[in-house]
Parts: sequence; C-alpha cells; structure tokens
Amino acid sequence: MNGAHALITTLVDAGVEVCFTNPGTSEMHFVAAVDDVPGMRTILGLFEGVVSGAADGYARIAGKPAATLLHLGPGMANAMANLHNARRARVPMVNIVGDHATYHTQFDAPLDSDIESAARTFSGWYGRPARVEDLARSAAEAVAAAMGPPGCVSTLVLPADVSWSDGASPAAPVPARGAAAVGDDVVEAVAKALVSGEPCVLLLGGTANREGALRHASRIATATGAKMLTEVFPTRLTRGAGVPAIDRMQYLSEFAVAQLAGTKHLVLVDAKSPVSFFAYPGKDSDLVPDGCEVHVLAGHADDAAGALAALADRVAADVQPVLAPSSRPPLPTGALSGETVAAAVGALLPEGAIVVDEAATSGLWSMGATAGCPKHDWLTLTGGAIGIGLPLSVGAAVAAPDRPVVNLQADGSAMYTIQALWTMAREGLDVTTVLFNNRSYAILNMELQRVGASPGPKALDMLDLSRPDLSFVSLAQGMGVDAVLADSAESFTSALERALREPGPHLIEALV
Amino acid sequence: MNGAHALITTLVDAGVEVCFTNPGTSEMHFVAAVDDVPGMRTILGLFEGVVSGAADGYARIAGKPAATLLHLGPGMANAMANLHNARRARVPMVNIVGDHATYHTQFDAPLDSDIESAARTFSGWYGRPARVEDLARSAAEAVAAAMGPPGCVSTLVLPADVSWSDGASPAAPVPARGAAAVGDDVVEAVAKALVSGEPCVLLLGGTANREGALRHASRIATATGAKMLTEVFPTRLTRGAGVPAIDRMQYLSEFAVAQLAGTKHLVLVDAKSPVSFFAYPGKDSDLVPDGCEVHVLAGHADDAAGALAALADRVAADVQPVLAPSSRPPLPTGALSGETVAAAVGALLPEGAIVVDEAATSGLWSMGATAGCPKHDWLTLTGGAIGIGLPLSVGAAVAAPDRPVVNLQADGSAMYTIQALWTMAREGLDVTTVLFNNRSYAILNMELQRVGASPGPKALDMLDLSRPDLSFVSLAQGMGVDAVLADSAESFTSALERALREPGPHLIEALV
Repeated sequence: MNGAHALITTLVDAGVEVCFTNPGTSEMHFVAAVDDVPGMRTILGLFEGVVSGAADGYARIAGKPAATLLHLGPGMANAMANLHNARRARVPMVNIVGDHATYHTQFDAPLDSDIESAARTFSGWYGRPARVEDLARSAAEAVAAAMGPPGCVSTLVLPADVSWSDGASPAAPVPARGAAAVGDDVVEAVAKALVSGEPCVLLLGGTANREGALRHASRIATATGAKMLTEVFPTRLTRGAGVPAIDRMQYLSEFAVAQLAGTKHLVLVDAKSPVSFFAYPGKDSDLVPDGCEVHVLAGHADDAAGALAALADRVAADVQPVLAPSSRPPLPTGALSGETVAAAVGALLPEGAIVVDEAATSGLWSMGATAGCPKHDWLTLTGGAIGIGLPLSVGAAVAAPDRPVVNLQADGSAMYTIQALWTMAREGLDVTTVLFNNRSYAILNMELQRVGASPGPKALDMLDLSRPDLSFVSLAQGMGVDAVLADSAESFTSALERALREPGPHLIEALV
Repeated sequence: MNGAHALITTLVDAGVEVCFTNPGTSEMHFVAAVDDVPGMRTILGLFEGVVSGAADGYARIAGKPAATLLHLGPGMANAMANLHNARRARVPMVNIVGDHATYHTQFDAPLDSDIESAARTFSGWYGRPARVEDLARSAAEAVAAAMGPPGCVSTLVLPADVSWSDGASPAAPVPARGAAAVGDDVVEAVAKALVSGEPCVLLLGGTANREGALRHASRIATATGAKMLTEVFPTRLTRGAGVPAIDRMQYLSEFAVAQLAGTKHLVLVDAKSPVSFFAYPGKDSDLVPDGCEVHVLAGHADDAAGALAALADRVAADVQPVLAPSSRPPLPTGALSGETVAAAVGALLPEGAIVVDEAATSGLWSMGATAGCPKHDWLTLTGGAIGIGLPLSVGAAVAAPDRPVVNLQADGSAMYTIQALWTMAREGLDVTTVLFNNRSYAILNMELQRVGASPGPKALDMLDLSRPDLSFVSLAQGMGVDAVLADSAESFTSALERALREPGPHLIEALV
C-alpha cells in the first residue's frame, strides 16, 4: 500500500469524509488514490481560498474537520487568508499540503519555498513525515489535534515520494480529548461576582454560542441581572424564535465601550477579553473598563456549556431562560436598501437556515430583522480576512445538504473568492447569495473618516468599486449560477422567494 | 510630517512611481497621504494576488520596483503566490504591509498574525520600523535592496501608529549597487572550455535574456559551436526578427535531458543549474549529465552582459551574431486549436508587443509561430505558482503604455486571479487576453498519466473544468472588459485584429 492510500484510509477512519481540493502535480498520487478508498468525497475549488474557506464552513456545521488538498507553498499561501479566519474561529481542519519529494528539495526547484515557516503561523499542529512508514500515524495525530478542544488547523506536509512509496499501512484514530470540566471553585468565584449586586457581563464565545449554553446563560442573566453579550464575530451563533436572544459586542470600539460602561465583573465563557478590532489614534485598545474585574469561567479547551449549567444551577436554580418570541417583519416595498433587504430576509428566512454573514456595512439591519425567525445558525467572519462568505457557504451547504444556506454578501469582499460560485454550481449546493452591490468599499470610507483624514480623489478612488461597475449577475452566470438583478424591494422579494423555493445555487444582485 | 507622508515622499524620490493597492483600515493614513505627495500613481486591485502580480509585471518591463500596499498578514498572504513568482523572477518590488499599531499587537486582535515569519519566506529584505523617525530610512533601504542586483522582493511592515505619527522626514535614496564585474580569470576559464572542442551549452537566465547579452551569446555560439539555451521560464526574453533566436530548456525533464545529452561543459550565465521542475518516481532531479562540468560565468549579482561581451571578444572577435529572420505564418483557417491560435498571433503580433505567456499546454505552438515576428518581449511564469498571467499583463501595460500587451492565458490558471480584468478596465490598459478554454487542467491530466496512475472518475473530476462550463466572456463582461467568443480560426483572427486595433482591454475566449 502506498502512502496516499494509507493516508486517505486513515483520514476516513478518523471521520474525515470530505476533502476540498485544488491539486497539482505533486498531489497526483493522492488524486489517483481517491477512487480506490471508499468514503472520501472530493470537491474541487478553482482557487485555494475557496478550498480553505469551505473547509471552515464545513467544520462549523459538521463539528468535525474536512481535509484540504493544496499544492506546495504557493497553494497553501493562496489558502492562508481563510486559514487565518479558521484559526480565529477555532474550527478543526486538516490541510494536506503536497510538497516535492524529500530528495528533491535540495535542488531548490521553482516551486520550492519555506512551507513550514508560513504554515506554523496559522497551524495549531504541523507535521512533515519524511518516511512513508510515519505518514498514517502523523495523519491520525493531525486529525486528533484538529479536533482539540479547542479546534485548530492541522497542517500535514506530504512529500511526493512519501505519497507514492509503498510500505505504508493505515493508522487507527487517535482518541479525541474531551473538553475539560471547569472546577467548582471557578464556578463558585464567578457565582459570587454575579450575586454581588455589581454590574456584570457574561461574554460568550466559541462553543458557548450554541443553544444549550445560551439557555443556561439566559437563566443566569435573568436571575442575576447580568447582561449577556456574544463576541463581535461569532463562529456559529444559534438564534431565532425559541432560543435566548443575545446581542453582539459592537465592532466599532466607541459602541463597545458604551456596551461595557460601568461593568464591574466581566465573565468570559470560551471568549477572549474584548479588544478594539483596529487601533485608532487616541483611543484605547483594551475595551475592559477601568475597575472591572475579568473572570474566566471557561477557557477555549473547557466545557463551556457544562460550566454555564453548573453556574445556572448555583445562581438560577428555579429560573427559566427567556426565549426570543416568534416574529417576522412584513414584506417590504419600495426602494431597495440594506434595511429593505433585511426585512425581506426576515420575512422569508426558512426554518433551519444557515446564514453566512459577510455583508459588512450593508448587513447592519440583518440580525434585527431575523431575530424572531425560525431557529437558524449565524456564521460570521471571525478573523477579519475578507473573502470568506462565498466559500463558507459552500462548506456549510456540503455539511448540511438538508438546510438552506443564505449568504449575505458584500460586493468588495465577494471579489476575493468569487470562484466559489463555480463550486456551488458543480455541486448543486442550496445556497442563496444575496449580493449587496453598493459599488464601494463602504466600510473603508467610514474608516477613512474615522482616522480624521480629508481624502483627495486618489484616496477616494481606492475605496470605490465603480468605473467600471461590477455585474455580479454576469460573474455568476459565467460560473453557471442562476442570477438575477434586483433594484426594488418587490423585485428582491420575488427573487428571494424563487431562490429559496428552487434547489441549487442562486445569486441575487441587490443594488443598494 | 507624519510617517505616511515621509514614506511616500521617500519612495517617489527613490524612483518608485506606482503603487498597486488593496488597502484596509490600518492603511488609511497611507491612503489619505497619497493625494498630498505628488508623483505616486495608485492602482487598485480587487484581490492582492492581482496587486503582487502586477508589481512583478511592472518591474519586468520598467526595470525598477513598484510598491504594493497590503492589509496586514492576510492581505500579504493573498499576495504571496505571486510574490513567490516574483522572488523566482528576481525582480525588484517593495511591499508596504500595513500592520496594527505597535502598542496594539499585544492584544492579539482578530487580524493579528505572524507577518514576519511568512514575509521572510519570499523577501530578500524585511523591515518593521517601530519608530516614526526610522521609517523613511527603512523605506530607502527597502528600495535599494529591491534593486539589487539581483532584484528581490523587499517587505516593509508599517505599523499604523508609525504611519500616523508626526515627526518623520523623508530620506534620501540609498545609492544602488551596480552589478559586479566578472573577473578575467573566470572569463578565461570558460573560454578554455568553449574552445576545447568538447560539447558546450550556454544556459542564459535573468538579465542574460535581453538583446545585448543575446547578441554576445550568439557570437560565442557561432564561433565555438556551443549550443545556446534559455531557462525553462525566463523572466523576460527579448526575441523576434533581428534578435538572436534561443531555445528554451524544456519543461518536461525527459526532453530537457535530451537537450543536454552529451554536454561536457555547461556554462551558467545568470541562470541556475538545471533541475527537474517536479520529482518523478525513478527519474533524476538533477539534469546535468554525468561527466559534465558546470561553469558559472555570471552569478545573479554579476554583470552578465559584460561577461558575455568579454567572452565574445576572447573567442569570437570577428564573428557576428546570427539574427532571427523576419517571417510570419499565414493567417490560419478552419478549426480553432492551440496551433491555429498560435498562427493567428504569429501573423498579427504588433511591433514592440509584450507577450505574457501563461498558456500552459495550449501555448505549445506560440513561440514557434512568433519566432520571426517583429521584436517583442516574452514574459513567463517564473515560479510555477499559477495565476499570474492576467496580473502580470496589468503591470506590464502600466509600465509601457505605448506597447501592446498580448496575454496567452490558460483557463484554469486564469481563474486564480480573474479579478485582474477589472483593473484592466478601470485603467484602460491595452491588454488583449487570449483565453484558451479547453475546459480542463490539461497539464494535470498529462501529469496524472506521467505518474503512472490509472485514474477513476473522482480523480478525473478534479482535473476537469466542465460541469458547469466557464464562460470567460461573461466573466470579462461582468468586470467591464470587452469580450468575444471565438470557435473558428476565422472568428479568432477577426477578433484578434479588432482587439489589437482598438485601445483598451479585450478578451477573446478561444474554444480549443
């Protein structure tokens, strides 16, 4: 058995069922082996940023890793921005990076580069087995490390000769570590703060944004008067009618400061202490108010839901969670805008939908308009590297073929990984992309004002996406995706109804 | 004066006139400063791989660096594949990578990453000034290092507070190093080998592929019977009628071995010793024949043209170079194929054209068909990271607005950086893209056969670009570029004539 066969068998045995691929010559033995090993679905992306973003979306919904197949250092480099986002999302993922044969690297052939240094910047686990006998064991370790907790990106560099050489055998899965139980003393200390009568905030992140954890948190908040917040960019937030509602920390630090003003105890639950997304002249980076004590109820490797349950039993034994009521906005009419698009989405969002939100400034109204929709999951841009919405939607749709995916997508961000539309078409994925076309990097126009600049024409030109206007209808059609233009609330609503009714991918270009 | 103003002034004073940009919030002070400092043209790319590839194309034609403006680690990561190609091309380039403020990095905000480790993998020079007083001097050093020789990628990380703080002043340019003269003893030793009567090969790379150097090399080859070859993927090869013709080293190692068979003396002139592009089971990586002595006439930092001139004076004092005769193939008729496309290009290529060749398997006939065309330059994919043709064309067209650019472009490769079409449209660049649409990664189908695999349907699916077919006409039109489909030699010829006659960008989708 050659290395490639043993590797794929090991991955499948460890529960890795999907491989998002963009292979090259050094990966040809892996490619050739895929048909021989049952159980691995391969999905081609036309650019590696699609591949890595899709693996992220898959992991967020499936709760386990997909593999990626990447071509040497440059292929990995193209995947890196979305690997950065995956690192920040703390999702499991296993990259297979094909490399030159072990004996070939000494010759510094054109595609040779320092893969390890670049890979270590986003990888929680890194390995490069130099012998075919070691490959399968490395792969099993890569999967286990990826599963965490916390989840991480594992990167396994696969030299071509290790892939093609005989003498390999599959390795058994490495047992996963469970999340660590949080000690009673920690729960007790946080309970004391919560019942102190001083203003408290529960900041939920990671695994604490799922329904069970949210219900415990709501009980705690209701009983103690603490405020519940989720992080600015949650990996996966379950929400809607019947689920406790939670506000997000605000992106702009001025507003985040207002949300936290007066807080005396900040309780972190699988969340990082809040910091400003960017630095601004004369503004603080650390958003924790002066005199506020920070408590860690659960770290990233801990059982956050269990800790919240224990805490709720301690401070809110007989208290029920407060659940969001069912409600939908009326279908909008008139001009199309971020607000009317949001109302239409709120009016029509199906039960069990997965919303992928990379709408930037155009998405301001979306969460409000959907707060009372049937239960759904909300995925966001965790690491700030724009260009994830379309790929994330690919992966989410692969992980949950029975759930509709609605991608709220900004124009500028969409252009980084626009190739994802082709994969949606090829795989027949049930993704409805709402493409907000405002013909600018609107968020940067805002940021330019915030830094106090008085911009001239060259500066403004760098934030402008007109001259020429992009036609996302043409782009989508060029990649085989059904697409229509909407320029009124009525035409948008009608397009959205049709897209949600018909299977397969659709794109609605919303001129806002 | 703030850091951004001093930085831009320093760059302009050092001869950097163009900045390809894809900025974000941390670069807003740089963006705001661009209007205040005369002399810097800013050109927006919608994806960072466009930005870095364009800077490479600019450098190949202008012979000096453009700047890039990139947004933190993820922005740099998106640029990396084409930075890898630029490193292999040994072209000068100055990356400005905006980073968080120096005091902000301790908070590990979402966009924070290990920029330095990734940057050092492709950068010949790296700097991150921590004080505004040091910024301009660093920038001057970055430009000088980029200029080499050999040229390299310089990466200057610009913390946001260093950019926005006052107290900066511009720095004077750092004098460029000249290329090192090659010693008489080296020339004499190579001369001795050339006149030994044993089979010799002159392998030219880098700066030795320009007209002057080629003329000297041709004199040497004519006088001594040595064979002239250029490297597999030249950065910039001047060729056509009136210029000495030179064969390229073959990409496939079997053919390269045949080209070098029997050689006793291999003379490297700003070229690396030949190695196989990839490793293959049972095949050698090192392509130098047994018993062949390798001589370095000029290294990458040496005056290659001067060394060739001295060598020619020594062994070919009265010999004239052999120049390619003027000739063009007749206009083709009938079915469209790689061969008939090449004939049409050969029949019509304008004087002074810049050909950007990322045509992969479809381009097999292109160099033969254009060998007798009026003098032109030929740019190739130097580092094997596909997705450079469209961006390289952008940069070449910016550097030489009076020269037509013809981009011979494979379909699969085009999709990595398809966003470059928008920049062509915005800037009105005179680029004619010949898009070979064969609906597959054809080169990988070949490689799959070469590794001896018997592929199944999943494997073949990963090398196939149909289901759905891509429409490059739609994609181009969606980004504002005039585009037509050609499915016969006649319709292709007519489209090419029109594209070359009319200013601005055109795309011809050639179904081959």
